[in-house]
Amino acid sequence: MNTELRQPKKLKNGTLRVVPLGGLGEVGRNMTVYEINGKLLVVDCGVLFPEESQPGVDLILPDLHYIENRLQDIVAVVLTHGHEDHIGAVPYLLKRRPDIPLVGSQLTLALVEAKLAEHRIKPFTLTVKEGMVESFGPFECEFVAVNHSIPDALAVFIRTTAGNVLHTGDFKMDQLPLDGRITDLRHFARLGEEGVDLFLPDSTNAEVPGFTPTEKNIGKVLSNVFRDANQRIIVASFSSHVHRVQQVLDAAHERGRKVVLVGRSMVRNMTIAEKLGYLNVPDNTLVDLKKIDNYRPEELVLMCTGSQGEPMAALSRMANGDHKVQVEPGDTIVLASSLIPGNETSVFRVINGLLALGAEVIHKGNAKVHVSGHAAAGELLYCYNILKPKNVMPVHGEVRHLIANGELAQETGIPEENIILGTGGTVVDLYEGKAEIVGQVRCDYVYVDGRSVGQVSEDDLKDRLVLSEEGFISVVTVVDRQTKRVVSGPDIHARGVAENDSVFEDIAPKIVTALEDALHQGPSKTHTNHQLQQIVRRTIGSWVARRLRRKPMIIPVVIDTPTKNRD
Amino acid sequence: MNTELRQPKKLKNGTLRVVPLGGLGEVGRNMTVYEINGKLLVVDCGVLFPEESQPGVDLILPDLHYIENRLQDIVAVVLTHGHEDHIGAVPYLLKRRPDIPLVGSQLTLALVEAKLAEHRIKPFTLTVKEGMVESFGPFECEFVAVNHSIPDALAVFIRTTAGNVLHTGDFKMDQLPLDGRITDLRHFARLGEEGVDLFLPDSTNAEVPGFTPTEKNIGKVLSNVFRDANQRIIVASFSSHVHRVQQVLDAAHERGRKVVLVGRSMVRNMTIAEKLGYLNVPDNTLVDLKKIDNYRPEELVLMCTGSQGEPMAALSRMANGDHKVQVEPGDTIVLASSLIPGNETSVFRVINGLLALGAEVIHKGNAKVHVSGHAAAGELLYCYNILKPKNVMPVHGEVRHLIANGELAQETGIPEENIILGTGGTVVDLYEGKAEIVGQVRCDYVYVDGRSVGQVSEDDLKDRLVLSEEGFISVVTVVDRQTKRVVSGPDIHARGVAENDSVFEDIAPKIVTALEDALHQGPSKTHTNHQLQQIVRRTIGSWVARRLRRKPMIIPVVIDTPTKNRD
Repeated sequence: MNTELRQPKKLKNGTLRVVPLGGLGEVGRNMTVYEINGKLLVVDCGVLFPEESQPGVDLILPDLHYIENRLQDIVAVVLTHGHEDHIGAVPYLLKRRPDIPLVGSQLTLALVEAKLAEHRIKPFTLTVKEGMVESFGPFECEFVAVNHSIPDALAVFIRTTAGNVLHTGDFKMDQLPLDGRITDLRHFARLGEEGVDLFLPDSTNAEVPGFTPTEKNIGKVLSNVFRDANQRIIVASFSSHVHRVQQVLDAAHERGRKVVLVGRSMVRNMTIAEKLGYLNVPDNTLVDLKKIDNYRPEELVLMCTGSQGEPMAALSRMANGDHKVQVEPGDTIVLASSLIPGNETSVFRVINGLLALGAEVIHKGNAKVHVSGHAAAGELLYCYNILKPKNVMPVHGEVRHLIANGELAQETGIPEENIILGTGGTVVDLYEGKAEIVGQVRCDYVYVDGRSVGQVSEDDLKDRLVLSEEGFISVVTVVDRQTKRVVSGPDIHARGVAENDSVFEDIAPKIVTALEDALHQGPSKTHTNHQLQQIVRRTIGSWVARRLRRKPMIIPVVIDTPTKNRD
Repeated sequence: MNTELRQPKKLKNGTLRVVPLGGLGEVGRNMTVYEINGKLLVVDCGVLFPEESQPGVDLILPDLHYIENRLQDIVAVVLTHGHEDHIGAVPYLLKRRPDIPLVGSQLTLALVEAKLAEHRIKPFTLTVKEGMVESFGPFECEFVAVNHSIPDALAVFIRTTAGNVLHTGDFKMDQLPLDGRITDLRHFARLGEEGVDLFLPDSTNAEVPGFTPTEKNIGKVLSNVFRDANQRIIVASFSSHVHRVQQVLDAAHERGRKVVLVGRSMVRNMTIAEKLGYLNVPDNTLVDLKKIDNYRPEELVLMCTGSQGEPMAALSRMANGDHKVQVEPGDTIVLASSLIPGNETSVFRVINGLLALGAEVIHKGNAKVHVSGHAAAGELLYCYNILKPKNVMPVHGEVRHLIANGELAQETGIPEENIILGTGGTVVDLYEGKAEIVGQVRCDYVYVDGRSVGQVSEDDLKDRLVLSEEGFISVVTVVDRQTKRVVSGPDIHARGVAENDSVFEDIAPKIVTALEDALHQGPSKTHTNHQLQQIVRRTIGSWVARRLRRKPMIIPVVIDTPTKNRD
């Protein structure tokens, strides 16, 4: 995978250009730009969640540089489903051009509209559903039902004069889904007969052999857990997993328990899902969190967020004992969720905390309380065989997932040269049935931190990592350039360095000497304050490295004595 | 699990007291103190590796407060095996009293001596082996062979007038180990017949059903991988895993390849193991790293460290392309190691990097190239049944592991009240066959950072986390108390905040006003510099929170104009 930047040639009329701006080489910030005859179609616009090496970052966006001067040419943004990694960056795109039409299913649009309302944006939308065909400039889009861990997901088949593309979005092929809405293989078959020139399939589970089990299995496990529980039950899962919540509601109703939704996103999403008919709440089953004191523990199920060990979410706070819901010995906690790689430490910290409080904890490590939302290798093989695409570009996954998906394609008979392993910013052109990489454009991480978007740089993150590993020392000195003396300071303060400030008593006089030596050097060597600061930095830096074996960040401030300015 | 501090009653003569100072509620810093009739026996003295919430920390030690005034009473430190989490803190204990005798097997002592040599300590040692009985004051210790992921591991059976304790150390029950040295169940049976009053078993894999497969299986997998490879092979594993390295040597020898050991700890440990006869190097198989250019890629196997994605280890640097060994398309990389929870992100980063370079990567996710070193639930049941201990205190594991191990004990018929779930600092007394918790002593994390031991506090770590999430702003101002004016500054510098310093132009005049207002308040309100600094902190802090939606650390420095001091 070559990621050296290489500007593609100007796009000729009649050729389709495909540029993923995120989602390849990472799980998150999915966004793909299609271009033909001067018009752009965007599929998905999601966020990526930061890793521990990106401290303080709230979100990571797709890199919009590639389209920043082309916003007026966007004919539509198609959203395949309502997960954050597919819709989370829409507000940031619409802030730049609020009238870009959003196209998606009813639930997807309801979720993105709720998100946009928080940013005070009211979008132009077009609701579509499976089987519908809509044209957006030179793109004719046909929508196909796919099954995923959120209802109402769609794949999109894009017809252009250069060829046809099938973009799956996230999907799996549960043959017994809760809502009966399967990934429509008959539809796939028709599209396969028409001809798929380029196929962009979800790669998340391409390394996983076999088939993802049906969501329905979890209902039986929950039913057993609820039957055996004789105190409070707390279930944690993703706040958008309508079918998982449905099964919790059903299991609770079966045992005559009330369900309390806990966590802002859980309440918001389930309110939307219920209103639109995706969630079926049995009569009087839902109870407001404020009223839980009216019920005995054995009458309640709490359905909450925090299944990934997020420190501020309800479950973590319960595990730490700082939530209004106090976990008691004998309570049953179910983590009905995946364990996203990288979250192990925090999830097990929560599990250990709950166990130490005496609760029983059921999680995917000891019971079948989760199934994935993504097609495993066996399911992907079905897709390749029914679609028989000419070219394949695996998307939605780390390098290892993309490679594994490409290998599956090859096993079904697709020639290796027709399998495109790309990364963010890879430019692929499709013309007369041939897809090939023609360039590589910039696709950096765009960090959201507080109110700032794109202002946190890689250098800032390096600074933050140095600060977190080593802390910092600030050294403030006031010098008088007339007397060539240090007249105040050095005032030395350390934070995160784990030494008493008194340790610096040794080095203070050396800083004074170094500065005064410099000040006494003749006029030709007259030092600027910046140069004096460098002298302070070197003097204390080498002392700290030698004496304390540390390399904190050093912030030297040298100020000229104010009286000089007034003379 | 109650962790509130509760000083135990003074220990009566004839009662055995057991106090773990680490290793319970965590995987690492294993250390247990046994006391009877005024004398102490220590079993193991290891380190814990920090998590991401402990930035900048090198190691975490057991809390020695409990024994700090009792060092002269220690009759011996028994080391069960040579892993860091069992021997790594020995130098820090011996720095306080260098003549404490160390007792362990030949390999264990050789590894701890190499470590002590780096700290310039030459210890008093007593080499023991399985079957031997040695008395240390009131403790009679009998050593039992156990099998683990490092050779020459020992359990210790401790006879006292108060009862007998079996402390397993880490172990598993591979029935076909590479060196033929099994966990000696005949010996366990004899001890069971004599009577085990308290059993302290390894809990790491108590949650894992069934049996750990034999290490020998890996030899076959490696042999197949080596047969199919036609370029360079790179294997990464733990640097103390002598049997894993042995199997790599054997597979390499079988294919006529040379092996290069890469990484300081790998070279050091394998040199010791070979010298003592634990590692059998086939003739002329080992080649020095400096000479690899004399061999073609298909003639070489590199055996290196870095299997956990440690950023400075050989494998990570190869994946980043900044190691002298350049990974080429077609190379075969084998991660013959576990994936320790918490390391997923870094391990997969390395795997993705190697795949992107075109290498084939074999790891425990896609091939059977690792087996655990710890007994799974099935093996632990054998132990409970053959030993029939009166009391059990599970050790070596997080809360979830300890609880799972306790449940296994209960399933074999040990009454629940005889199963002790403790944590670091739990004080357990054994007298006349009855073990019970009698107190809870302090057992804090003791952080090693650079040259400092125990100086990094939880507050320092909080500071570091704030710095890493938010960065800091320093504000330096010089004031003249006679004119009641700010005569220089505010000089505002931010790091890690991701804003240009120019953003602060707005707030600078407000800081000046706030300070001068304070200075003008009458003599009764004369502010100290500290109070003025608080004013600066509040002024800029609320502005930053409102304007930038951030909460960086704020370091206000207010200096009196130096001329005043000279007046």
